[in-house]
Amino acid sequence: MSKLSPVRFVDVALEGQFWRERLETVLTRTIPSQHVQLSNHGILDSLKLPNPPPPLRFPRNEHNFTVQVFWDSDVGKWVEAASYALSHRRDAGIEAKIEAITDDLEKAQAPDGYLNCWYLQREPDKRWTNLRDNHELYNLGHLLEGGIAYFLATGRRRLLGILERYVEHVRQTFGPNSGQKRGYCGHQEIELALVKLYRLSGDRKHLDLATYFINERGRQPHYFDQEAAARGEDPKDFWARSYEYNQSHKPVREQTKVVGHAVRAMYMFSAMADLAAELDDHGLKQACEVLWADVMRSKIYITSGLGPAAANEGFTEAYDLPNDTAYAETCASVALIFWAQRMLHLDLDGRYADVMEQALFNGALTGLSRDGEHYFYSNPLDSDGRHSRWAWHTCPCCTMNSSRLVASVGGYFVSASDEAVAFHLYGGMSTTVALAGTKVFLRETSTYPFSGSIKVEVSPENPATFTVKLRIPGWASGTSATLNGAPIDVKTGIANGYLSITRAWHAGDVITLDLPMPPERIYAHPAVKENVGRVALKRGPLVYCVEEVDNPGGRVQQLQLPRDAEISVQNRDDLFDGIITLTAPAGRVEAKDWADNLYRTSPPLRSGGELIALPYYLWNNRGSGSMQVWICEA
Amino acid sequence: MSKLSPVRFVDVALEGQFWRERLETVLTRTIPSQHVQLSNHGILDSLKLPNPPPPLRFPRNEHNFTVQVFWDSDVGKWVEAASYALSHRRDAGIEAKIEAITDDLEKAQAPDGYLNCWYLQREPDKRWTNLRDNHELYNLGHLLEGGIAYFLATGRRRLLGILERYVEHVRQTFGPNSGQKRGYCGHQEIELALVKLYRLSGDRKHLDLATYFINERGRQPHYFDQEAAARGEDPKDFWARSYEYNQSHKPVREQTKVVGHAVRAMYMFSAMADLAAELDDHGLKQACEVLWADVMRSKIYITSGLGPAAANEGFTEAYDLPNDTAYAETCASVALIFWAQRMLHLDLDGRYADVMEQALFNGALTGLSRDGEHYFYSNPLDSDGRHSRWAWHTCPCCTMNSSRLVASVGGYFVSASDEAVAFHLYGGMSTTVALAGTKVFLRETSTYPFSGSIKVEVSPENPATFTVKLRIPGWASGTSATLNGAPIDVKTGIANGYLSITRAWHAGDVITLDLPMPPERIYAHPAVKENVGRVALKRGPLVYCVEEVDNPGGRVQQLQLPRDAEISVQNRDDLFDGIITLTAPAGRVEAKDWADNLYRTSPPLRSGGELIALPYYLWNNRGSGSMQVWICEA
Repeated sequence: MSKLSPVRFVDVALEGQFWRERLETVLTRTIPSQHVQLSNHGILDSLKLPNPPPPLRFPRNEHNFTVQVFWDSDVGKWVEAASYALSHRRDAGIEAKIEAITDDLEKAQAPDGYLNCWYLQREPDKRWTNLRDNHELYNLGHLLEGGIAYFLATGRRRLLGILERYVEHVRQTFGPNSGQKRGYCGHQEIELALVKLYRLSGDRKHLDLATYFINERGRQPHYFDQEAAARGEDPKDFWARSYEYNQSHKPVREQTKVVGHAVRAMYMFSAMADLAAELDDHGLKQACEVLWADVMRSKIYITSGLGPAAANEGFTEAYDLPNDTAYAETCASVALIFWAQRMLHLDLDGRYADVMEQALFNGALTGLSRDGEHYFYSNPLDSDGRHSRWAWHTCPCCTMNSSRLVASVGGYFVSASDEAVAFHLYGGMSTTVALAGTKVFLRETSTYPFSGSIKVEVSPENPATFTVKLRIPGWASGTSATLNGAPIDVKTGIANGYLSITRAWHAGDVITLDLPMPPERIYAHPAVKENVGRVALKRGPLVYCVEEVDNPGGRVQQLQLPRDAEISVQNRDDLFDGIITLTAPAGRVEAKDWADNLYRTSPPLRSGGELIALPYYLWNNRGSGSMQVWICEA
Repeated sequence: MSKLSPVRFVDVALEGQFWRERLETVLTRTIPSQHVQLSNHGILDSLKLPNPPPPLRFPRNEHNFTVQVFWDSDVGKWVEAASYALSHRRDAGIEAKIEAITDDLEKAQAPDGYLNCWYLQREPDKRWTNLRDNHELYNLGHLLEGGIAYFLATGRRRLLGILERYVEHVRQTFGPNSGQKRGYCGHQEIELALVKLYRLSGDRKHLDLATYFINERGRQPHYFDQEAAARGEDPKDFWARSYEYNQSHKPVREQTKVVGHAVRAMYMFSAMADLAAELDDHGLKQACEVLWADVMRSKIYITSGLGPAAANEGFTEAYDLPNDTAYAETCASVALIFWAQRMLHLDLDGRYADVMEQALFNGALTGLSRDGEHYFYSNPLDSDGRHSRWAWHTCPCCTMNSSRLVASVGGYFVSASDEAVAFHLYGGMSTTVALAGTKVFLRETSTYPFSGSIKVEVSPENPATFTVKLRIPGWASGTSATLNGAPIDVKTGIANGYLSITRAWHAGDVITLDLPMPPERIYAHPAVKENVGRVALKRGPLVYCVEEVDNPGGRVQQLQLPRDAEISVQNRDDLFDGIITLTAPAGRVEAKDWADNLYRTSPPLRSGGELIALPYYLWNNRGSGSMQVWICEA
């Protein structure tokens, strides 16, 4: 039996309103406006070596860089997102922009293939002297992903060729042989890009290089120690204090707890899962499973946000999940989707798809505004109204992570092998895959995530026997299904979160799924200290929040939801092209009789009323105001 | 009628156990160990110009200074604290240490009087080029306070003379005349030190200089703009973004909201109150009152902590009082005591004394460990166990603020004029003051703050008529009092929080006060979002907290205190030389049945039990663990 692999997004037509809207917004507004921002902030100019015009404003960061060391990666991610857009529809304007970037990179590239614009402009003799901090290989990884996407979209090889030359330079520079540096990047990313290049080219050397980087990481003597000493620095003066920051504190197979910078961790785990699949490496797979369990047990927000702390942009202690200071970087949720999808293809287990979906709807989507041109970098679950979306950021990594994800989101819906097709996500899509030697047209129709009423049409060109797998989300209880109108015994048909139907299929066969979506109250483990006495609302895959605009009269944190209050569902066609909100009778502690007192001995009065909750991913699209996910239950 | 002024600490004998213990600890342990720390961290060596030995470790801060620009101030504050110790009892060892510091400063001083060791060593030609950031006048302020204290304790004038020469240099350098810089310090402090020098010397020029610095602050054209431009910098690139950070965003008399760095604000307000008193400046007094009201209305923790945010070490929005990320720097609470005492002497109003006391017991004292050698810099009201006391800090400002406060705490107890004496604080003390032309021995006996049963003996050498004022704290209701055994009508006797008794006094007269101290539940204004549904416990002036060591079985944040639970009082002679704890029946949400789940749809089970609370200022003296002030009320 062949393995399931994702059906590429170019082969998936998104037909449901939910994803059509997001995709159109990203294609028509986000990607073009991001090019404008990259231009306005001097990021595109920074490629124009040897003398790029200085940016108008010099953003300063903690390393006192004016032009940031990771700007190449931002360009790479934009090229990737824009190329996904080209895969949807060619556009001469976008192509000209990518060609112009290619021109600059071609001119910038050193004769030996090296191509990092920050070092080439500033300290060409210092390349590869600070892998720990300065993102050289990370930048290459993102450029490479961009080059691959551009080649796939247009067939144009020039950009990819430039980057392949750079990869060859890297391959000669790094490795275990004498004369080579035994280094690896402080910010993981090159590894998964190299796996993509391997899959594109079939050339094993790229897989080997990715494997080298993953296996070398965290070995003793520690490369970052040696490198710091060579720079004349005391390795102990590492600003982040511990190599846990970049997950090089020990070899990756020995890591059992998720630590450090969240995006670095997620990119690394994605690469580990890739290699586990490509090399059939059971040890690496097991390491992924152990790390996955650690995240899910105590280190993930209900929204799928990862990494509570701003200090390391990452993980801290188990159950440390503060709501208002949650860092929960958008990039980390996007990268969690990458990791979850890879885990899902190591083992078709609905737990992975559940997290992938949760991260998509509640983590990643939140980072992009409804208008497609404003962003969240961090994603708190509680705000007094001071947290709002920005048009750009001195570290714009999240912006293009949002656009490249949405522009390719169709690729997360369905996987196929020779004999089976598996539906992971719902929301309206169609595709044609080859199963059991025949072309099979598949169409899934629903208004998911707002309704769990799903219809799947299975139309083989010729009648054929194969398996259709439909994910039954972990949150769905009481699911019913029919096949051509006849009920299916769901209970016995489910394994690992997927309902499997193997039979001889004929054109026009129809499966229906009914995933009940009652509003749910969710409680957090009592060790999450912020959430004691609090409840969150969820419906289907969507986490809800209360926002001040819907609940005027003071901060939403003053709302209190009685435990026995009935939560009802409203169709709100007037909001965001139609969504479902939740409403419940609720109390509100009142400030009226407090005068100028800040503290007093009598409890606040409580008035009656109701609360209105809307999906978390939509918050802060109607101006600033207070917001809360975990509501006081009293 | 003459004005009330504080009776100096040297004239107040602390006799109660509570303050004797703290004072002895500071005199015998804190002050000596601080000298060791100053020595070990290279801070004392940094005075040894022209070539101080480099510190063994180079602490780096955001300005990339190795030796910190404010180290002179740390020395000054230690000299001040140590001199207060000498006022209690002379000690040749301490005096030798201060003399050695004086030697170094004498050698370091430039011929024109300038004396900033950081600039003299590194950038002697750049003195006074960055008042905004580099603390030159701030350092002088603290050195001057040290020099004055040392002179008062020992009569030795050499250190003070060095600093007077430096003040004279400053007086010539700064001012409105042509050839002078129209500058002032980015970190206020010099102003209140100059008032002290004026009060010591009677020389009006010091008062004038302080007045100049206060009046000049925030005027346009803005000095810090001009200064930055002169350095070749864009003033807009100020790292703190706004001059609100150092309260120079507008002239001080136009400021109505407390903003920016909390310690800077408190030192400035203290100086403003000083000047309002010295100059009888009603406008300045009114500005102080407006700012006081703003702090009290919405910007002070129940513990008296000030400044919720680490980013600016200071103030943010109204009602922004997060518990676990509270910055609430110890220095700010110490400085609030300075300000409150000054406000109290502008108007004898118990509201000021209430805050002074609240800051003393719950803000300032918390910063110093029971052993006298460990510190809190920030003072959260909620911790998962990761916040603990440290033996030293790269910015050791708080350490010497604790020691100089406690070493002089007797100075906050009583004030006197020619005809009246006012008791502000209780806890056991005696003093002799001159009232109505006769010496009056006064002794206050109590175990305050643990008991509100207070006895005040009033013994004039000769019978005389004068007024005794006894503060009745704002939290005390149902207070009763007697005079020589006969009940006093407290209600009619109270004005502005003080019970006034004017009569002909005779030796051996005794007043008793009974301030009832039932345990109290305190609620926060509903706009403090973190405290909705929560309650704090208080008894008398002490804020209580629950700490894990007394409440084992998981994080204390899992505790829930039912609204109707009766809170009882325990004498705990086994804890900290005898304290009073509070106990109440309480629930605890249980983690037992959660297995590896982080979220679930059924609420956590709740077990019964009790909670034990102890005074907040004592937390983290028995190892690390979770702690909480605001307890879930359910």
